[in-house]
Amino acid sequence: MKTLTEYLWFETAQRRELVRLTDTVAQLVKKAGVKEGMALISAMHITAGVFVNDDESGLFEDIWKWLEHLAPRGDYEHHKTGEDNGDAHLKSLLVHHQVIVPITRAQLDLGPWQQIFYAEFDGQRRKRVIVKIMGE
Amino acid sequence: MKTLTEYLWFETAQRRELVRLTDTVAQLVKKAGVKEGMALISAMHITAGVFVNDDESGLFEDIWKWLEHLAPRGDYEHHKTGEDNGDAHLKSLLVHHQVIVPITRAQLDLGPWQQIFYAEFDGQRRKRVIVKIMGE
Amino acid sequence: MKTLTEYLWFETAQRRELVRLTDTVAQLVKKAGVKEGMALISAMHITAGVFVNDDESGLFEDIWKWLEHLAPRGDYEHHKTGEDNGDAHLKSLLVHHQVIVPITRAQLDLGPWQQIFYAEFDGQRRKRVIVKIMGE
Repeated sequence: MKTLTEYLWFETAQRRELVRLTDTVAQLVKKAGVKEGMALISAMHITAGVFVNDDESGLFEDIWKWLEHLAPRGDYEHHKTGEDNGDAHLKSLLVHHQVIVPITRAQLDLGPWQQIFYAEFDGQRRKRVIVKIMGE
Repeated sequence: MKTLTEYLWFETAQRRELVRLTDTVAQLVKKAGVKEGMALISAMHITAGVFVNDDESGLFEDIWKWLEHLAPRGDYEHHKTGEDNGDAHLKSLLVHHQVIVPITRAQLDLGPWQQIFYAEFDGQRRKRVIVKIMGE
Repeated sequence: MKTLTEYLWFETAQRRELVRLTDTVAQLVKKAGVKEGMALISAMHITAGVFVNDDESGLFEDIWKWLEHLAPRGDYEHHKTGEDNGDAHLKSLLVHHQVIVPITRAQLDLGPWQQIFYAEFDGQRRKRVIVKIMGE
């Protein structure tokens, strides 16, 4: 069995940002030399998400608006610790912090519209995503 | 390490539908000959979900009603592209598009009430789910 | 490839409870002797969740309040079966019932604030979580 572990670093200019990871992960699959297996892409922070969806700017607006509606900025008990990112924790729970992408014939086995995104909910600080590839 | 990759095709009669996948996946585990490992069941489209829950018709009504409440049909920016399925993208994010089911002693290692479902949020077109089995 | 399968039993005193699993899973990684791989931590019941987030009591209050807001106790079709836990099924869908934690250099490869939690939404009965470790 082959494995590869890489850490992707982010420090987004905005508090909230979507970063497309598909090409980076595809390169890591090549580097790993794995033909059949899985790639785990998982945020290492609790105020960020990783998800698979469409790369369409109108949809991005819809997603942000929807997340703000379901997990709004506001007053949270968590803020008594000095933080102000309670909403970012809830947004992370909502969209989930990780995906697994299958690898088939040495390629990410994604559907035609599927793109992998890092979703930053509390940026402007250094954060990491782990990419762990396993297979043979 | 053994791997098996299969694609399940769907073209639901309704716009929204739940399809139970447990038996199909169990057969693929047998076909793969994997005794200890994992099965990834992952929608290859961004307007569908895959989840594990109870097979109970009342609960299905509750889930649909709840999803419609939290991610309603309506006007979305995404619709400027000509699509009308913005809600389906949000529903997919909400329930997530994949699960991993452990395989133990050559069987899906599910709890007594756990069933695997494909959730179609924008049907009446051909769609795929990938089942990727890894183990030995 | 090495694998290890363990079942963690829970019977929480309260209907809703959060139980931190990080240390238990870390011990199982040691027991498995896996240096590079993945640990799947997955609830075997459909009224519980498993998620990764911060271990902070204020945040826990925020999470419970938020879950109650988005998936409230109330009247559900599911209750016609004699159950009264419709909300718990929805909460389980919302936070998801499983996570995968990468294992690197024989350790759980978590970020500085990431802790693994079992979230009980309908406790006071015996329930299980499966921990499945794969790697080498």
